[in-house]
Amino acid sequence: MNPCPLCEVVRAPGAVFIAELEHSVAILGENQGLPGWTVVVLKAHREQLHELAIAQQAAIFGEVARVARAVAAAVRPRRINYECLGNVVPHVHWHIIPRAADDPTPSATVWGWPAERLLGGMDGAGRSRVIAGIREALG
Amino acid sequence: MNPCPLCEVVRAPGAVFIAELEHSVAILGENQGLPGWTVVVLKAHREQLHELAIAQQAAIFGEVARVARAVAAAVRPRRINYECLGNVVPHVHWHIIPRAADDPTPSATVWGWPAERLLGGMDGAGRSRVIAGIREALG
Repeated sequence: MNPCPLCEVVRAPGAVFIAELEHSVAILGENQGLPGWTVVVLKAHREQLHELAIAQQAAIFGEVARVARAVAAAVRPRRINYECLGNVVPHVHWHIIPRAADDPTPSATVWGWPAERLLGGMDGAGRSRVIAGIREALG
Repeated sequence: MNPCPLCEVVRAPGAVFIAELEHSVAILGENQGLPGWTVVVLKAHREQLHELAIAQQAAIFGEVARVARAVAAAVRPRRINYECLGNVVPHVHWHIIPRAADDPTPSATVWGWPAERLLGGMDGAGRSRVIAGIREALG
């Protein structure tokens, strides 16, 4: 059995670490073709959001909301897309996807974007600046 | 200025109505190629989720969670995708998208599906049965 990659991230987030909250850890997403894309990962390994207690789900979303507001303050998107999928990695996590004013396909989800556009060209220093901006906004 | 189509739905949901909650109205989605696809629409016309108070966002998600659990009980999906986008209709709403055991592309989002597969072939009686099942599970 392979280890869960998101359990690994929770244990040792490394350079992508943004913040630790009560139920979750916020990390910078890989796809910085959408600058500020952040992933909020549940600390506990749970595979199905709907199996958690309703109050716990609401509390987790409160953390997603806090992080999303900080992302909005840091990168000033036109809109934010929120997605909890688990189709690829079945460990509860939330994508906070900022859609910029110059987004080439604002009416569509980002899942039709080519992989290299998703990934973008942001270097390590750029990623560190985005993380610093989100952290500052989180307070 | 065109009227907001989701404000119209809140006012008069018609045959797709599932339930009214404190902050939202749950309706059956158009795309019953994924049986049980439900949309939770905020009653108030607000365009940006992240501009609402954090506690209100958490409360709204508590309603999404209640509805999603009822959808899970009604259609027994392998997984649920949760998405709050607003890319097409800028009125806060949540997609609760059940992914069935026989989903043809379980690792991908549904946004790459052809329109007719999304729409599916469920007739009015089928839709009424799904609505009845979700309502019964909501209690």
